[in-house]
Amino acid sequence: MQQDTQIARSNDGLFAVGSPVTHWSVRTSNPVQYEIRAGENLLDPQNTTILEDTDGTTGLRRIVVTDSMVDSLYGDRIRGYFEHHGVDHEVLVLDAGETHKSIDAVLRVTEALDSFGIDRRREPVIAIGGGVLMDIVGFAASLYRRSTPFIRIPTTLIGLVDAGVGAKTGVNHNGHKNRLGTYFPADRTLLDRTFLTTLDDRHISNGLAEILKIALIKDARLFDLLEQHGAELLRNKMQSPETGVGLTPADAPVDQRLAARGLHLDPATEVVERAIHGMLEELQPNLWEKVLERVVDYGHTFSPTIEMHALPTLLHGEAVTVDMALTTVMAERRGLVSVYQRERVLGVMAQLGLPTWHSLCTPEVLVPALRDTVRHRDGKQRLPLPVGIGSAIFANDVTETELAASAQTLAELSAGARR
Amino acid sequence: MQQDTQIARSNDGLFAVGSPVTHWSVRTSNPVQYEIRAGENLLDPQNTTILEDTDGTTGLRRIVVTDSMVDSLYGDRIRGYFEHHGVDHEVLVLDAGETHKSIDAVLRVTEALDSFGIDRRREPVIAIGGGVLMDIVGFAASLYRRSTPFIRIPTTLIGLVDAGVGAKTGVNHNGHKNRLGTYFPADRTLLDRTFLTTLDDRHISNGLAEILKIALIKDARLFDLLEQHGAELLRNKMQSPETGVGLTPADAPVDQRLAARGLHLDPATEVVERAIHGMLEELQPNLWEKVLERVVDYGHTFSPTIEMHALPTLLHGEAVTVDMALTTVMAERRGLVSVYQRERVLGVMAQLGLPTWHSLCTPEVLVPALRDTVRHRDGKQRLPLPVGIGSAIFANDVTETELAASAQTLAELSAGARR
Repeated sequence: MQQDTQIARSNDGLFAVGSPVTHWSVRTSNPVQYEIRAGENLLDPQNTTILEDTDGTTGLRRIVVTDSMVDSLYGDRIRGYFEHHGVDHEVLVLDAGETHKSIDAVLRVTEALDSFGIDRRREPVIAIGGGVLMDIVGFAASLYRRSTPFIRIPTTLIGLVDAGVGAKTGVNHNGHKNRLGTYFPADRTLLDRTFLTTLDDRHISNGLAEILKIALIKDARLFDLLEQHGAELLRNKMQSPETGVGLTPADAPVDQRLAARGLHLDPATEVVERAIHGMLEELQPNLWEKVLERVVDYGHTFSPTIEMHALPTLLHGEAVTVDMALTTVMAERRGLVSVYQRERVLGVMAQLGLPTWHSLCTPEVLVPALRDTVRHRDGKQRLPLPVGIGSAIFANDVTETELAASAQTLAELSAGARR
Repeated sequence: MQQDTQIARSNDGLFAVGSPVTHWSVRTSNPVQYEIRAGENLLDPQNTTILEDTDGTTGLRRIVVTDSMVDSLYGDRIRGYFEHHGVDHEVLVLDAGETHKSIDAVLRVTEALDSFGIDRRREPVIAIGGGVLMDIVGFAASLYRRSTPFIRIPTTLIGLVDAGVGAKTGVNHNGHKNRLGTYFPADRTLLDRTFLTTLDDRHISNGLAEILKIALIKDARLFDLLEQHGAELLRNKMQSPETGVGLTPADAPVDQRLAARGLHLDPATEVVERAIHGMLEELQPNLWEKVLERVVDYGHTFSPTIEMHALPTLLHGEAVTVDMALTTVMAERRGLVSVYQRERVLGVMAQLGLPTWHSLCTPEVLVPALRDTVRHRDGKQRLPLPVGIGSAIFANDVTETELAASAQTLAELSAGARR
């Protein structure tokens, strides 16, 4: 295009064309690395994991952000932990729940950072809570001085397998789910399943929904594990036998039992591990979503709208499950999934304590929901649909008629199941 | 650290250690490329630059964000341009000025994007305005659906040589300059110096301050150009002779005149080009500021606090100049700059219509300002100080005493200059 193609290359990534210059081109790349570590009893004062990677000098300062629910359960232990280690700290407590996932909460965090005062790089913000809390704190950390490191400690199952392991931060805005946000992974995520022992069943189910998503789109073995052990996982709150939580003495010693069955891992450990690993396999090559055909978007086409309309009655994983149930029916109608497979899928959803239908599952809600998602996916539906169990394709040709018929079938199946 | 070092490498950037996994490591990289193009008369309907890089299909839609000042000067031409090209468009007009650089303005932009409705990747937001406007729109674009492309068209000199060519977005918050923001360069920045013809002298001076900064830290030739042609550049509003703006007929024909003097570019073109190129040379290898010792931070140590305290009386470039004057005096006291060089520097500042002192230049303001900047630079001062003209070092040992003495000397020099 330029007639004068004189190129002044100041360094490998800066090109100037022409004299006078008509065109500069800047090329560079932001390397990102983050760590996820599994451990137990992070809040035990003897456990130094939370304070690892510090330079060991005295005068450590940390700001901790948590939510009111976590604070009521763990607040004393959190404060005791930092006191024990002589860390100058402050604990900011935000309101819990999806309805408080707003830019106001993000600004509250940044204002707390201002008044506490932290150095830009070496005093990571520590987020202890569920998916909502981590999304808010991650968002605030990404904006504060254009990026401040943070550490995530998920306390819910959905936080552990989904929000805690990816790179997305965000808040709801203007009535839209996660309309504002950034890609900003925590430097470190510390996984501790013992937090799950204080979760109610519904919140365990909520996390199992995102695990089921990974199973349906890419991991048949994970689906089998959920089908065989789902009820037990729910009852045991995802604890491994060795932790003893929710288990009878007959379950132990677990190592010998597992070995006798030729297994290496107990079901809870294997389920969590496969879910996280499967999620990371999808995220790592596409962390900034340059590719918009993402299998991990399965269950996330209609659910953002359903969840926002239903607030606060549906949890995120519940809305995702309704979306997955609808699209499983759609896949069966297309011959991608057999009737038997569809029944297994809906059966596992029920077994995991998840809803397979919601009254908002009507064309009046689903059609505009698809329209907004099409904008989000840059003009195409790119709708993940399951193929059998453990695989997926992308559809771009879903019509309003097909959507209405699928919703109708799902309503009938669900009514039948409830009878 | 891990006793079990079994590594499951799912792809080149995902590592899982142990069985059960005790540690996942995710490594990836975000490639970024952006373009800066110089042109003229972008709003001429015959000029298609603004709509370049579209896929050429019909039904183009664009949202344009501008400020009230630009709208009063160019609003009709902006609307006429998009009408001429049959583009379905909307123009959002924000309040002009640093005092409106707030998160509220960012949210107004995102809400306009919601109501207009844009596809996520191929309908770039177009920002037409000065540095403040571009920082706001860039921030909104970076957050909206976690990133939406945008195009910058700077209408001020500071926008053209500084805010328009870098990657930083942001707003003031909680009384702090640019406390919230992101690194998010526009896909394209389109430079058109003819916009500068409607700027008042003070806003030309404001931009010249950032050009002077580049000169002082890394480009002695640029300093010479400013010293020789500064008054003329200000009077001609940075127009090249061929555009005829502000020039007498005796100045033309420029090509022959320049050639006779062995020069290739006229001063305005060379000054702008050197300023932009120098800026890009510093930014390209350090776009995300992983290295906190940045020569382009020169003039930006005390000025954020001075500017915020003085709002709205000092423009950004004016506050930066006061900071540069102070640190030039400090460098002279340290023997890094000669008295003669200091006089040349302060002389050029005056010639460019810039202030060399402000009543906020007192230890009561400067000491806390340095403290906040130290947090921003992760615990060290990393204060760029000029060495002669065209070079810089970083100081970490500035004391309150030195600061007070430098401020005192500057006050005396400035009072002397005013007498």
